[in-house]
Amino acid sequence: MALPRSGPVRSEHARRAILQATATLLAERGYDHLTIEGIAAAAGVGKQTIYRWWSSKGDIIAECLLEGMVVPGRGELPDTGDIRADLTRWLRDLADMLARDEGELLLRSLIAAAAEHVEVGRRLRDVLAGPESLSGRLERATGTVPNLPRGAPVEEIAEALIGALLLRALSRSPLQPADIDRLLRAVLG
Amino acid sequence: MALPRSGPVRSEHARRAILQATATLLAERGYDHLTIEGIAAAAGVGKQTIYRWWSSKGDIIAECLLEGMVVPGRGELPDTGDIRADLTRWLRDLADMLARDEGELLLRSLIAAAAEHVEVGRRLRDVLAGPESLSGRLERATGTVPNLPRGAPVEEIAEALIGALLLRALSRSPLQPADIDRLLRAVLG
Repeated sequence: MALPRSGPVRSEHARRAILQATATLLAERGYDHLTIEGIAAAAGVGKQTIYRWWSSKGDIIAECLLEGMVVPGRGELPDTGDIRADLTRWLRDLADMLARDEGELLLRSLIAAAAEHVEVGRRLRDVLAGPESLSGRLERATGTVPNLPRGAPVEEIAEALIGALLLRALSRSPLQPADIDRLLRAVLG
Repeated sequence: MALPRSGPVRSEHARRAILQATATLLAERGYDHLTIEGIAAAAGVGKQTIYRWWSSKGDIIAECLLEGMVVPGRGELPDTGDIRADLTRWLRDLADMLARDEGELLLRSLIAAAAEHVEVGRRLRDVLAGPESLSGRLERATGTVPNLPRGAPVEEIAEALIGALLLRALSRSPLQPADIDRLLRAVLG
């Protein structure tokens, strides 16, 4: 889905290898153990190739997020017309991912990266809660259920849902199906 | 407010100095630049004194949180009987803190610490959203406004509000008064 940058084909190949290596290492080892050296070795490129395009590991993670390489749930928010059922299914899938050790480590790694790099924070919010994801789905659903009238604060509802998910990841408190129902009741009445 | 631990008075004095130094350095320099060496120097104790009581900087931050030394808003949630007005005032105070560079750095530092240390994550959630803070205030308010009936999911409402705040801090998007009104509309209707 990424368009090739200007430059020779070989550069785009290296760029993809670097992004893929970053996504894999982030999920396997966590943000603290992610190094430019480790990414270079896994991608089969020299460190200088990485530094030609990015100034820090945070910048690479931000680009991974933009290209949908680290958050599996991206764009897969269902749209059957029943907003509560769709959100329930999507949040259960995210909660299932978080209930697995590697899923929890990945989200905590992304949060740690976001705490350090502004661009990671912005893209994490966009990818999970933004108009192409949750808030867009909510916007299209306004007027279809009593508790989501036209003009409802869809961005804030999206931020509240995703924020609650992040807080659960930070406190290692898995979201059970009953918690998801209550969370949806908290924002959709 | 902390009770002295068992042991001589001098130990409690050193313990308080270490916690205070940690809180100050965390707010001034951020989590990444916080080291046991730096805490020891600022507190005027040896590193071994610190390692006698704590195994990592995350453990010290967790204890700071427990003693109310790093989150200024702790316990200051007003209770005038008007839940929406009280939450508006409290969230505006928190947003004002976040709008200042040092406040934003402090919250991002706590989030980074929480991403790494489970105990920091749990206490951050308790301090900001727990029964002695936000969810307790919400629980007492159930039944006083139409959108917060008895049995309302107060824990999830609290997590949604605090989670949204964390997500704003991570994406460096200050909460304006109008955003706070919309956020409260998202969870209180």
